[in-house]
Amino acid sequence: MKKYKGYLIDLDGTMYKGTERIEEAGHFVDYLVRNEIPYLFVTNNSSQTPKQVAKKLNEFQIQASEDRVFTTSQATANYIAQKKDQATVYMIGEEGLREAIQTSGHHLVDENPDFVVVGIDRDISYEKYAKACIAVRNGAAFISTNADIAIPTERGLLPGNGALTSVIAVSTNTAPVFIGKPEKIIVEQALEVLGVAKEDTLMVGDNYDTDIMAGMNCGIDTLLVHTGVTTKELLKQYNSQPTYTIDSLSDYLKHIN
Amino acid sequence: MKKYKGYLIDLDGTMYKGTERIEEAGHFVDYLVRNEIPYLFVTNNSSQTPKQVAKKLNEFQIQASEDRVFTTSQATANYIAQKKDQATVYMIGEEGLREAIQTSGHHLVDENPDFVVVGIDRDISYEKYAKACIAVRNGAAFISTNADIAIPTERGLLPGNGALTSVIAVSTNTAPVFIGKPEKIIVEQALEVLGVAKEDTLMVGDNYDTDIMAGMNCGIDTLLVHTGVTTKELLKQYNSQPTYTIDSLSDYLKHIN
Repeated sequence: MKKYKGYLIDLDGTMYKGTERIEEAGHFVDYLVRNEIPYLFVTNNSSQTPKQVAKKLNEFQIQASEDRVFTTSQATANYIAQKKDQATVYMIGEEGLREAIQTSGHHLVDENPDFVVVGIDRDISYEKYAKACIAVRNGAAFISTNADIAIPTERGLLPGNGALTSVIAVSTNTAPVFIGKPEKIIVEQALEVLGVAKEDTLMVGDNYDTDIMAGMNCGIDTLLVHTGVTTKELLKQYNSQPTYTIDSLSDYLKHIN
Repeated sequence: MKKYKGYLIDLDGTMYKGTERIEEAGHFVDYLVRNEIPYLFVTNNSSQTPKQVAKKLNEFQIQASEDRVFTTSQATANYIAQKKDQATVYMIGEEGLREAIQTSGHHLVDENPDFVVVGIDRDISYEKYAKACIAVRNGAAFISTNADIAIPTERGLLPGNGALTSVIAVSTNTAPVFIGKPEKIIVEQALEVLGVAKEDTLMVGDNYDTDIMAGMNCGIDTLLVHTGVTTKELLKQYNSQPTYTIDSLSDYLKHIN
């Protein structure tokens, strides 16, 4: 197995499973820290700030500080900054998205924005949708943090941001630019923050359709770990296979040591 | 021009235009009343009750009582009754839909419904979407009053029910049964209420994509009146033409008298 100089690492299903700890995940991160290998946790969750995500990881006994977390909200804010400095943004979303947009120097506005950005918003309303539709019809660029159709919760699968985004897409007949995994945009942004070359970076995740596809779409090597969504059985259905496939992250440590 | 024994008549663009009166529309309805020809106003608007719709028509000096109004909410409630008597329904929608469902003897419930029904709801929330998604995933039949993607308002085009419905469709990967125009379901239900045979009924409307298509889908004759959405220019783009096309309903009265 090749030794990598940097890692992009998924969270749910890879570092923990819902409310459940994955012990091997902690050991894997300990190894990275011990060997001073750069890593970033890359998540499609737009609702939380990096600080909140790091705190959650710490509760699962995984070493993480907020500068090790890269959310799709940050990727979105960086993507906007590449298009326009100090852009005006009409946002549907929660704290993580708001903080990322404001930290990047953009301005949140209610009318005539340069960009309409949609992230998961558990306080969604018709008025928010109305404002977004009017802005997109008036020519604002339409961006969505991620296309996930559902969120696993204790109650079952609840609507994800891709589903919420569809109201504006359908009403205005305009396809958004999605930022999160499996899109390559978030991986490109994460690589820039990580500061490691593409060919020396490994994308680690449990979900073929998001994590592995994102790595593939960006042309970086991928490691699928069977601790979450994509089982061995499910993996057989795909033509393109990940660079590596393992049962748990402790197997990976055995291989590289 | 053939004389018809019954009429199904669209509202906005045909009987009035937004907040504007269409004078000829009133004369046309006067003719129907005078000659005791059965008619029904058929609308995709699920939010209002027949009484509210009739009141609005009266304000435009058009003869209408609530039993002359047939909304997509009523069509939806009747459709459900054909599938199951006294069904349990989880509803997203406004007063018109609520009244129609309850009047038809169905029971509104929050959990484990037989049907999930979605109509325009200016008080939409994430929690409403969550309940709908859980129910559809648990096997509830998924119905939407209409597929209109936008509603014209003074502020511009705001999200229509087809757009709101897409959240549940996308999240659960389940296509709803749409009831309203251009679907034939609403026309079939309206014909039943009208009590006139298909071949003796004329569908009158201004919108090719909803009114005329609904008539065609149900196999009844159609009259397109150029007082609303579909202009002469737009009409040229369609292969199948309406049975009749006129500039205003006073032209129609001239033809049949």
